[in-house]
Amino acid sequence: MNKKSLPLSRVYRLLEPGPVLLVTTFHRARANVMTLSWHTMMDFEPPVVGCVLSEANFSFAALKATRECVLNVPTVELARQTVGCGNASGRRVDKFARFGLTPLPASAVAPPLIAECFANLECRVADTRMVRRYNLFVLEVVKAWIDPAVTAPGTLHHEGRGAFMVAGERIRLPSRKK
Amino acid sequence: MNKKSLPLSRVYRLLEPGPVLLVTTFHRARANVMTLSWHTMMDFEPPVVGCVLSEANFSFAALKATRECVLNVPTVELARQTVGCGNASGRRVDKFARFGLTPLPASAVAPPLIAECFANLECRVADTRMVRRYNLFVLEVVKAWIDPAVTAPGTLHHEGRGAFMVAGERIRLPSRKK
Repeated sequence: MNKKSLPLSRVYRLLEPGPVLLVTTFHRARANVMTLSWHTMMDFEPPVVGCVLSEANFSFAALKATRECVLNVPTVELARQTVGCGNASGRRVDKFARFGLTPLPASAVAPPLIAECFANLECRVADTRMVRRYNLFVLEVVKAWIDPAVTAPGTLHHEGRGAFMVAGERIRLPSRKK
Repeated sequence: MNKKSLPLSRVYRLLEPGPVLLVTTFHRARANVMTLSWHTMMDFEPPVVGCVLSEANFSFAALKATRECVLNVPTVELARQTVGCGNASGRRVDKFARFGLTPLPASAVAPPLIAECFANLECRVADTRMVRRYNLFVLEVVKAWIDPAVTAPGTLHHEGRGAFMVAGERIRLPSRKK
């Protein structure tokens, strides 16, 4: 794998901009993947991430039961696969096979990394107390990977019903904040 | 004001892409504004939004006490003001005056809309049970405004330490999902 370990202190830089994610789970001997836009950073280090998954998703039960997932960050080259994973259900479809996504073993959790995504965050569920009321899982990122060749990733940002904004120009301003 | 009311069912399209927000509060006869990237949609309609604010922020106490805020969505034309609001504290500075932001009366809450932002979401705090542990406020959007002239907003997406990605190209793929 042409990826290097990313310090956990830098994970927020990947998630703060709000990219669409591909979430992988592993349950009952099967890997699955779903598309997710409802997430927020909750703490810097260790990185804590809040994710809201509909209980209608096949992945919801897998995450609740196994308490592990990987947040994979796709770019515009994977737009078709990203929407496809959102339209299909793991109940009926092996999405890795259908969309030509390559599962790679993670280092600390059972769900696979998606090789085609430029960044992969291995996560454990840290708190399920907000699941019943809000479908909100609190995740801790325990290991992070990044492709160092990707310096200006064309991340996807959902604007509803299949419309996406693709990451554009990068700018920098003097800031005293993280 | 050259803005029209936005149906609440469309609010998620503004927040899902993960734009930096300017959050206005009103407490003890003073309006204040802070910069925020840690937010996620939690429900479609009525729109529910989760926001994580550091308790070190002057706005944290205002939001906790008054249970009202406005989420204003800036674009790249406001990049300097957006970073400036993040670097300064309302304890010492009238940020509206310092950064030339224009407060406008909201319709349902006390905190002002920021005229220069193309969209403004009037919110009430719906749940504070996650504030103590996670600084997470659950907000309900009660009224939304949008400038209909802005069709491809150059929203700002923070990548850490003053680095921002600016919204780029818009694409559309066939999707069966919201």
